[in-house]
Amino acid sequence: MSQKKSGTILDPRQGGRELVLSTIRANERMARIDIAEHTNISAATVTSITAEMISAGLIEEVARDPENGEMKRGRPRVDLKIRGDSHLIAGIKISQKQASVAILDFEGNSLGEYEQDLPKSQLTQDEMAAFVLDLVRNATVSNGLKLDDISGIGIGLAGIVDAPKGFVHWSPQLSDRNIALRDALQKKIKKPCFIDNDANLVAMAEQWFGYGRKVRDFIVVTIEHGVGMGIVINGSVYRGTRGCGAEFGHTKVQQEGALCRCGQRGCLEAYLGDYALLREANIAATPADDESSRQQLIALLAEAKSGNKTAQSIFDRAGKMFAMGLANIVNIFDPALIILSGERMQMDFLYADDVIDQMRKLVVQVDTPPPEVRIHNWGDLMWARGAAAYAMEGVSELALEALGTQDS
Amino acid sequence: MSQKKSGTILDPRQGGRELVLSTIRANERMARIDIAEHTNISAATVTSITAEMISAGLIEEVARDPENGEMKRGRPRVDLKIRGDSHLIAGIKISQKQASVAILDFEGNSLGEYEQDLPKSQLTQDEMAAFVLDLVRNATVSNGLKLDDISGIGIGLAGIVDAPKGFVHWSPQLSDRNIALRDALQKKIKKPCFIDNDANLVAMAEQWFGYGRKVRDFIVVTIEHGVGMGIVINGSVYRGTRGCGAEFGHTKVQQEGALCRCGQRGCLEAYLGDYALLREANIAATPADDESSRQQLIALLAEAKSGNKTAQSIFDRAGKMFAMGLANIVNIFDPALIILSGERMQMDFLYADDVIDQMRKLVVQVDTPPPEVRIHNWGDLMWARGAAAYAMEGVSELALEALGTQDS
Repeated sequence: MSQKKSGTILDPRQGGRELVLSTIRANERMARIDIAEHTNISAATVTSITAEMISAGLIEEVARDPENGEMKRGRPRVDLKIRGDSHLIAGIKISQKQASVAILDFEGNSLGEYEQDLPKSQLTQDEMAAFVLDLVRNATVSNGLKLDDISGIGIGLAGIVDAPKGFVHWSPQLSDRNIALRDALQKKIKKPCFIDNDANLVAMAEQWFGYGRKVRDFIVVTIEHGVGMGIVINGSVYRGTRGCGAEFGHTKVQQEGALCRCGQRGCLEAYLGDYALLREANIAATPADDESSRQQLIALLAEAKSGNKTAQSIFDRAGKMFAMGLANIVNIFDPALIILSGERMQMDFLYADDVIDQMRKLVVQVDTPPPEVRIHNWGDLMWARGAAAYAMEGVSELALEALGTQDS
Repeated sequence: MSQKKSGTILDPRQGGRELVLSTIRANERMARIDIAEHTNISAATVTSITAEMISAGLIEEVARDPENGEMKRGRPRVDLKIRGDSHLIAGIKISQKQASVAILDFEGNSLGEYEQDLPKSQLTQDEMAAFVLDLVRNATVSNGLKLDDISGIGIGLAGIVDAPKGFVHWSPQLSDRNIALRDALQKKIKKPCFIDNDANLVAMAEQWFGYGRKVRDFIVVTIEHGVGMGIVINGSVYRGTRGCGAEFGHTKVQQEGALCRCGQRGCLEAYLGDYALLREANIAATPADDESSRQQLIALLAEAKSGNKTAQSIFDRAGKMFAMGLANIVNIFDPALIILSGERMQMDFLYADDVIDQMRKLVVQVDTPPPEVRIHNWGDLMWARGAAAYAMEGVSELALEALGTQDS
């Protein structure tokens, strides 16, 4: 159940295995010759690596559908694909009040979903481990499976998480600070567990199942209660040195600006988060007090759209700050693609044409087009699927390490 | 003279060669067993890769100095090191009015330096190629060498450069926009050439010869006429998709703020660059008009230090904006180390304790120390050495590719 050390570089052959497996995964079905072409690994090495993986049950051969690819006369071409039933994975998103589970096979096909309320809003480390065990057991049983069918569990939670170490500096859902949560989970559940910050998991969800599938460098921004960001560089999620990078919501857009939940001033989130918009709305005495904050925001947006100048000015300011923050990201990373992802993307003021236009005006001007901006409005289970993707990556590494051990 | 395609992944063995060579380089002298340990490449593979490199003349064996390492009884240990005379490299920094050249051997030892004025402030592509040829010829001759002794030339220039493509979108020293400058240089000089943005070259200088030698993730910020940044992630310079990332100077710190050279408003550079400070100084009617801007700045700093409130307020504002910009970088990257590098670091207001303290207060607070900040006040030749490092990387790749071709 060991995890790859951060920064460790594997044996060339081991690196080749990981590259071949991730290439097959990204392309769904692929012939050996195309894998060799795509990875620059020699055809002989691809043949030997894929033979190992087939005998380990990780991948399988499938005849190429003649409609999808050209049929060489007399000789049907064979593609390789991930073997879906080689491993089942549970991905979990721990939210403020409840947890969502997605059960996926190793190809990423959904086998079932499950939701369960948290027993209380903040848990100790031991309570969290017990809750996750109960949750995965219930999720499997309710989908006609059992706990032992699961090869790995990915868990995403808000807060500051050092993913390679499995360490949580702080999370709003945990009453303990600075805990080795992954170890506690593995001890209780006896399965490989993988934890990460929820925004990184949106990046993984986009990379494995969404708009980021074949893009090497991209940024995902997600706006929910707070503002999150995931960074994919050179095909991998970039997590920073202490596990607290990509804190886009806490980049400053105003000296001595509005007060943020984090206690500092001028953070982007302090202009863009739910609470920031509602703080403004309350000053303007717009919508009624007894509505929930989600409904309040919807009402506020409706007022802005129907011409209420005060409501419009609230969204205008948020849009300006968002454009400035996004432009700063483009000026630093120059990514190929920015994905605005998550449920709140239903609040279309955030990606209104004029916000994106403002962003484009604030980036360094060169004679090539600025990065593409795509909106991905998908549901809450996205996070759980991202958590599953992270666990799949971990389970793949463990399986490939086992192959490497057989070698020597 | 081909360059590695951006994003191309090499054959595992080729990747192993690059890793072994860069590991030897970073550690100066290293035994085979330590290389295997450090890279996670098997000892047998390290032995075979290093044998190839020794016969190609890239590296050589040296007896380990008994004082530097433990001596195994009866059996002197052997280290490997880069063979300095295997290749000579010229690194060039093109500045506003002149060009500096550093000639280094393949170990990074300086063999000589040279400076020459630009014929005019803006050159066409062809004039630049002719100038660089003349420059390298003069630099070699004046150091008792000849042009043919040089294996590769690295060139750094201000502006927006797509380094992997060898393409210059724009540079203040070129009258042409959007030119394939590397191809033009190679055609004229008949040597492998490598061009990059000057700020990336500071990052390479720190990585190869400075404080970044053994650090995987770090940021270099340099403040001269403008504000530059180099990003090293996972041991490599991150250059963005279009070659215009790391534009730290043009991240915005103020909505509708001060006017920047780039034509936009609120850029960090518009508060921190020479011209920004002098603009303020001129409003306050501080130092005399007939001084050069460098002397003006020194006079302004002296006035601030001797208690002039107006002069102090100019540096205070610059320091606040710098702290905010730096904190944003930390919140996004969470690097292990930030290096403030370059000549202007003699202007100590920029890294005064209270500026760094302000930065620390603006980053996300976790219970681990914030990134280390180091000041590296080195001279103008740093840029040329960084350009040489980039060319060394390129020449190494060409040499290792040649080894790979012999294999098959």
